[in-house]
Amino acid sequence: MRWVAATIAYDGTNFFGYQSQSGYRTVQGELEKTLEIIFKEKITTYGCGRTDTGVHALGQVVSFPVLNDNMTDKNVKDALNAILPEDIYVREIKQVRDNFNPRAEATKRIYFYLIYTNKEPDIFLRNRVWWMPFDLDIAKMRHAARYFEGEHDFTTFKTGNDERNPIRMIYRIRIINYNKNIICIRIEGKSFLRRMIRNIVGALVKVGTDAWEPERIKIILEAKQRSLAPASAPAQGLYFYSALF
Amino acid sequence: MRWVAATIAYDGTNFFGYQSQSGYRTVQGELEKTLEIIFKEKITTYGCGRTDTGVHALGQVVSFPVLNDNMTDKNVKDALNAILPEDIYVREIKQVRDNFNPRAEATKRIYFYLIYTNKEPDIFLRNRVWWMPFDLDIAKMRHAARYFEGEHDFTTFKTGNDERNPIRMIYRIRIINYNKNIICIRIEGKSFLRRMIRNIVGALVKVGTDAWEPERIKIILEAKQRSLAPASAPAQGLYFYSALF
Repeated sequence: MRWVAATIAYDGTNFFGYQSQSGYRTVQGELEKTLEIIFKEKITTYGCGRTDTGVHALGQVVSFPVLNDNMTDKNVKDALNAILPEDIYVREIKQVRDNFNPRAEATKRIYFYLIYTNKEPDIFLRNRVWWMPFDLDIAKMRHAARYFEGEHDFTTFKTGNDERNPIRMIYRIRIINYNKNIICIRIEGKSFLRRMIRNIVGALVKVGTDAWEPERIKIILEAKQRSLAPASAPAQGLYFYSALF
Repeated sequence: MRWVAATIAYDGTNFFGYQSQSGYRTVQGELEKTLEIIFKEKITTYGCGRTDTGVHALGQVVSFPVLNDNMTDKNVKDALNAILPEDIYVREIKQVRDNFNPRAEATKRIYFYLIYTNKEPDIFLRNRVWWMPFDLDIAKMRHAARYFEGEHDFTTFKTGNDERNPIRMIYRIRIINYNKNIICIRIEGKSFLRRMIRNIVGALVKVGTDAWEPERIKIILEAKQRSLAPASAPAQGLYFYSALF
């Protein structure tokens, strides 16, 4: 027996989030069901980030033991992709040490968030981006983003049901104007609270539409009051891009 | 009462094709259901092209009477988009003459077909492109495409259940390498037989993979035998792009 980490992509549209919940279709649930078919035994997996309903991944990392020593990493990848539903794809399998837990070990997580600013919607992007038909002021958003960088108490930007330590480190936020109509907000941090990224994006968009001045970010962050945060950005624009260990 | 033509986009994934069929979710069915809600009366619509299950549209054209003279074209567009499901979108409403039938009046129809040639699949494109992880020889495909251009008997490239006159005019086929991994085959013609475009794309891909020489297209076209055609390209890569009148 050895342990591996799978790098997986999924389209979050038809999942009730990443984490197993009995009675719901989840990414972890589909993965474990598939591993049980392959290894004829119940396997528990360890994911790196618990993405919410509708949130996508390009580089979620999930570890599990490989019970069959005759299978190469490539065999495991091919067997998983042959059985998994069409909205999950295993991109890579790598060996890791026994009981490797991606959630505890990740030193950096990168997410990105896509905003579509065209005046008319694009139905082909409806589950992939946040459609916001406004001219966003990117320079102001970049200014506001700087207040989030560094180590802060993110109480204002979490949800009530996340009772963990609210102090988190954001290494960097980049706002990239991919083309006339797509804005990508790329956030690198060590780890994030529940809804934290979507709340940060919601606040940056408030600044981008001129409803808020950039300085307001600093003020509400320091106030540590959840009621001061704007509405969360919707799930479908968020992608778990990668994790580093 | 006046007549209008709507230019509509739809994601064909969850439709049983364009044309109404009782008991199935179709684009025409959803449109007519929505018009009945708006005008409180059953309305029959006239579409330009009957796309199959899974085929998409960016510019399908559909005509119908507007029963309420107080509604502007913009009002009609907004009312439709407010009620239609999220996988259909009305892009434009234009006035046309009474009983305008887009199917009979179109002088040109443009379709495009997208092929994704990356070695690994992209789950976010799974219902949008044909994943064909091979290096396609574009120069050979362009050579082969020339045999389809002009007026021909397309018996080889239709399905058995299309009993109409098999002589069709293709104005032009362009094969565009959008980027390293996406090939777009753009086909302009006056009108097309059932499955004709997907059969043409299937044949062009045979040439692109070096399984066929370009000249074979000319031979099988002249033979007028359906059994000589290769398998159809799958529906999900095909888009009804626009129609000219």
